[in-house]
Order: sequence, then C-alpha cells, then structure tokens
Amino acid sequence: MIDWIDSYETRRWQSTTEGTVRYALLGLGWWTVDVALPAIAASELGEVTVLVSSSTDKAERIAAENDVPRGISYEEYHDGVATDAYDAVYVGTPNAYHLEYVETAAAHGKDVLCEKPMESTVERAQRMVESCAAAGTELMIGYRMHTDPAVQRARELIEDGFLGEPVSVRGHNSQPLLEMIPDPDQWRLDPDRTGYGTTVMDLGIYSINTTRFLLDRDPIAVQSRMASTHDAFDDVPDERSASLLAFEDCEMVSTASQNAHEDTRLTITGTHGQIELRPAFHGECGLHLSRNDLSIDVTHETFDAERETTELFEYFSDRLLSDGDIYPDGRHGLMDMRIIEAIYEAGETGDVIEL
Amino acid sequence: MIDWIDSYETRRWQSTTEGTVRYALLGLGWWTVDVALPAIAASELGEVTVLVSSSTDKAERIAAENDVPRGISYEEYHDGVATDAYDAVYVGTPNAYHLEYVETAAAHGKDVLCEKPMESTVERAQRMVESCAAAGTELMIGYRMHTDPAVQRARELIEDGFLGEPVSVRGHNSQPLLEMIPDPDQWRLDPDRTGYGTTVMDLGIYSINTTRFLLDRDPIAVQSRMASTHDAFDDVPDERSASLLAFEDCEMVSTASQNAHEDTRLTITGTHGQIELRPAFHGECGLHLSRNDLSIDVTHETFDAERETTELFEYFSDRLLSDGDIYPDGRHGLMDMRIIEAIYEAGETGDVIEL
Repeated sequence: MIDWIDSYETRRWQSTTEGTVRYALLGLGWWTVDVALPAIAASELGEVTVLVSSSTDKAERIAAENDVPRGISYEEYHDGVATDAYDAVYVGTPNAYHLEYVETAAAHGKDVLCEKPMESTVERAQRMVESCAAAGTELMIGYRMHTDPAVQRARELIEDGFLGEPVSVRGHNSQPLLEMIPDPDQWRLDPDRTGYGTTVMDLGIYSINTTRFLLDRDPIAVQSRMASTHDAFDDVPDERSASLLAFEDCEMVSTASQNAHEDTRLTITGTHGQIELRPAFHGECGLHLSRNDLSIDVTHETFDAERETTELFEYFSDRLLSDGDIYPDGRHGLMDMRIIEAIYEAGETGDVIEL
Repeated sequence: MIDWIDSYETRRWQSTTEGTVRYALLGLGWWTVDVALPAIAASELGEVTVLVSSSTDKAERIAAENDVPRGISYEEYHDGVATDAYDAVYVGTPNAYHLEYVETAAAHGKDVLCEKPMESTVERAQRMVESCAAAGTELMIGYRMHTDPAVQRARELIEDGFLGEPVSVRGHNSQPLLEMIPDPDQWRLDPDRTGYGTTVMDLGIYSINTTRFLLDRDPIAVQSRMASTHDAFDDVPDERSASLLAFEDCEMVSTASQNAHEDTRLTITGTHGQIELRPAFHGECGLHLSRNDLSIDVTHETFDAERETTELFEYFSDRLLSDGDIYPDGRHGLMDMRIIEAIYEAGETGDVIEL
C-alpha cells in the first residue's frame, strides 16, 4: 500500500525527460490564459513561445503580460509568420474554428494539441484527421482525464480485475453556465460555433470519453432524451440531456446539463467492486474505491485544473520528443464525435442508434 | 438549524398515538421473521398476533419461537381460521402469490399491507386493487422509503424550493443476489414467481418509486436496455438494466443489477441545488445536500432496515386507526407496475414506451 501511495502521481507513460517543445497557443480565452499558459510554464518539457489572437496588438499585449516572446494575429498565423518560433500548436478556440487552425498547422508541418470536442461536426473532425495524416503531423485531442493520476490509477485497478466484470457505468456532469459566463450569446449556446448542441458536446463528452478510456472499449448503440426550456438555450436542443449507451457486456447512463447546480461524477459498478470519481472532472478528482466490505477514499489536496493541464501537455511533449504513440489521437477523438452525433440523433428521433 | 436537527425523526404524518392494530404476517422468509416481526414489536400501534406459513406445524413453531400467540397454515388462512385474532395482514411472499392472499384478506374484511412490487403483472395488480375496493378494505404497498426520515426531510426541502427546478435524477440499486442467497433456483430468478424480471422489479423499483414520491410526479415515457449473461439469470431478461425515464421537465436514469457489488444511490440535481441519498435504500439512508457553495452530509447512526420498517408499519397502523388517507395505496403501486411493465417492453423492443 505504501508503494501505491508514494507512486500515486507517477507518470507511468513518461518516456523522456530531455528536450523542449515550443508551443503557439490559439484562442486566448480564460482557459488558455489562466490555465493552459501557467500549466505549460509548470511543465518540464514544454514552453510557450507564441500567442495567437484576433489582432497583433492584442496578442502582443497578452504576450508581454505573460512573458511570452511573440504575439501574432490569426491572419499572421495563417500566413506562416513566426513558424520558426514554435514546434506545436494548442487550439483552444470555439469548436467550429478548430479545423481551419489545424489545417494551417498541418500545412506548416506543426503538431497539434486540439481541445475537445474536436470540432462542431463529424465531417469537419474527419477532415481534421485527414489533413494531419496527409501532412504527417501529430494530432492529439485534449482529454485531460487520461493523464489525471486518479484516472490513471483507476484504469490500472480495472485492468488488474478490481471490479470483476464491469456491470454499469453512471456519468454526470452539470454546471450553471449562465452564472459562470453571464452572456446568453456566448459561443457554447450558438450552434454555428458549438456544433450539434451544448450539453453533450461540452459536458457529456467527459463521462463518455473517460469511460472509453477506463474500460478500453467503445459504445455500440445509444439512446437519448434531451430538452431545452430556458430562453438562452432556444437554439440548442440540450439544456439538459440523459443518454443510455450500450457497451459490450455493460451499459452506461450519462446525464448532463449546462443549466444546473455543479456536480461531476463517474461511477463504475462491477460484479465485485466499484470505482467512483467524485468529483470527477474539471480539476479536483477524488477516487472512491469499494470492494468486499472495504471502502477507500483517496483525495489529492493540491491537484487542480492547472496541474491536470500540466500533465496533459507533458504527455503530449513527451510523445513528440520520444516519437511515441498518442492514445487520444485524432481517430480516438473522431469516435467521440460519432458517439455524440448519434446521441443527438437518438435524442431527436427516440430511436436506438447503432454505432 | 437546531430545530431541524432535533425534529429530524419527527413523524409529521402521525395522527394518533392511541389504539392497536393486530397483524397476521404471511410469508415467513428472513425479511418477515428477522426484520418485519421485530419492527412491529418495536412500533407503538402494532402487534403481531398471527403467523401464517406453509404448514400449521411450521407456523406454530415459528410463532412459539417469537412469542406470537397463533400460527396457522395458508390453507387455514384461506378458510378463515383465527380471523378474530387479527385486524390486518402483511403479505411478504414472492410477488406472484400476493394476489391470492390479498383477495382472501379482502374477503375476510381485513386491511392489507402488501410488499412491493405489488404483484407479478399489471393485470394481477389491477385485480388486487379491485378486490380491496369492492370489499371496502384498505390496501397499502410497502414503500419503506416514504417514511424514512431522510426521505421525508428531502421531500420537504424539495417542496420548499431547495433544488430550484429539478433537472436530472440518477438512481442506482445493485446487490450480489447469488452471494446473499446462494441458490440459482430462488424465486427472484423464476418468472412464474417474480413476474416480468428480477432487477427492475426488485431493485429498480426503489429508485423509481422514491423519485415519484420526492418529486410528486410520474414518468410519462421510458426507454431501456437490459441483459442477462450469467447462467442463473437465463430465465429473466435483466441480470442488469439501464433505463431512461422522462418526467415532465426533467429526466431520470436508473441502473440496477442483481449480480453486482452492492451500491444504492438516488441523486436529484436541480437548477440551484442537489439532494443525494447515499446509501439510499435497504435501511441506512445518508442525506447529502448541496446548494450554493455549501455541502451538508447528514447521517443517522442508529437507523437501519428494522427502524425503517417500524416507521412503515407505524404509518399504516396510524392510517387505519385514524381512518386517514394512505399515500402509497394500491393505485399508487399499480402505477409502478405500469412503469415497470413499460420498462421491460422498452428493453425488449428498443422503443420509447409512452405511459
């Protein structure tokens, strides 16, 4: 047990401690500036050398404020300005803008870490995968949960048979979006920028993707029900959603809402044990284990969204520097897009949608 | 707050402290003998005067062991033996035997507290309601959660607006049935005695019924997926099940399994708060509240299945002695049977089944 405790944070995926990946960051919202930027600064293998924003002035100002050498505009980025100054690109813009920035990165021979969900539609996500494949550049999707120590340890326990056979998975992710960002015209509520909808795209994806990672299997069919009642959600179908996903030999239920009290959970009940992440997403991640008559609660006092993002970037840098395989690559992200599209279709039709 | 704490266990439904209801108990399994019998002994308004079992000898032996005055056989019960010795009947037999014992009780003018689920099919549950209505006898279904203090306080908080508007409900109820009762031929796995199936009938019903009680509304449509893989579950469709229930303005997901690690939960997330029962069912009931930035965990050290059952009987006795309305009456239980039948139909067809 002491070995398990002392190695709780160990990066078992780490291949190298040598080298540096220089990042250009695109989409300077609060996440990129307040979380991703300090997260990369705290990493060992990454550094931020370029910030990209709507205007050169704005980019240069934010760069100066954050000790980043260069600030350039999106236009300059597309034109190939400062390509000598960065090795890889982080895309943190609204969903529907991902493709154009990834295509440019591929054209410049740059590797990409792109935020989830990959894009606004399956078709655009597919084009993203193809452009990186054609250019021979790496594409990773920013699933932070994969490198969270709680999730890493949970996956190992499951591989070692802790659960017996998985029986049921329950995921939940809710937040009060309009309290967090008090703007009814924000991009997450605009189908042109968010894609199929808001709750499954932005929140449900955490439960679904983390389950795929933990169980190492993909859903084969989905059912769903969703609704919007608040005015601000008029243009998206899913102010709230409830989905039922069939995996081989086990079922998952996933609920999410952008207009609810915050709660994040992922619980996997097996024939012989149970693993729960509570809270599950967005930084803090508590690991609650039970098997036979024993319950164990593991919490990590200093782990937060920034630390989680440091792990994400360190993993990507490590893969690039060691030329290793990337688990959540473009094809992995594309599967999520297909699942999400099926959930929206199931919500609209009431049908079971096979994958 | 101190008033709330000190009145946590208060029976706000109580109308009388006078009088005694004399019970005959049918179906002397471990639940009836080890839980219901001491639970009634611990109540103020009830006493057990007759035990009914397969043979007179067995009934008399168990009666003597438990200081109960009379023991009679099922045959004697049907024949009207000892009807002067009891006022009401508790039916704790396998599901498919409920109807015949309730019909006899009605014929003898006895009131009935019948275990949930009411019967094996909607049609038989309907006949049960009709026979009691025709005889003018009371019929209550044994939903222990309604009189659990945690559930009572949760319902009051919801009525007072604690949640804002309910957004999503997640219920889960799993247990390792074959470890608890190591017999593959037990009645819960036999469709002739259990009815439509085992997991939704026996476990899912807790999540569904408690939600109906807490939200004071009924589902309007269901979707479901279920499967059996273990040999012992060959004759029932639902070794495990996952269901999606649509209520007006909110959705519920409910998972259950008779072949899994034990866990019981019910979580209702609203626009402004969250109420969780964890554990939720079978005795202990922890109440976990969150609203704004505050979380409150309420646990009750001495509450268990027996105490919960005492409350159930005390409520029924109180209603009989004061001639008050019974909340979980036959029609209330019949609605659960309709919901459960729809869930099995949805599981078989993949369709959305409207209620």
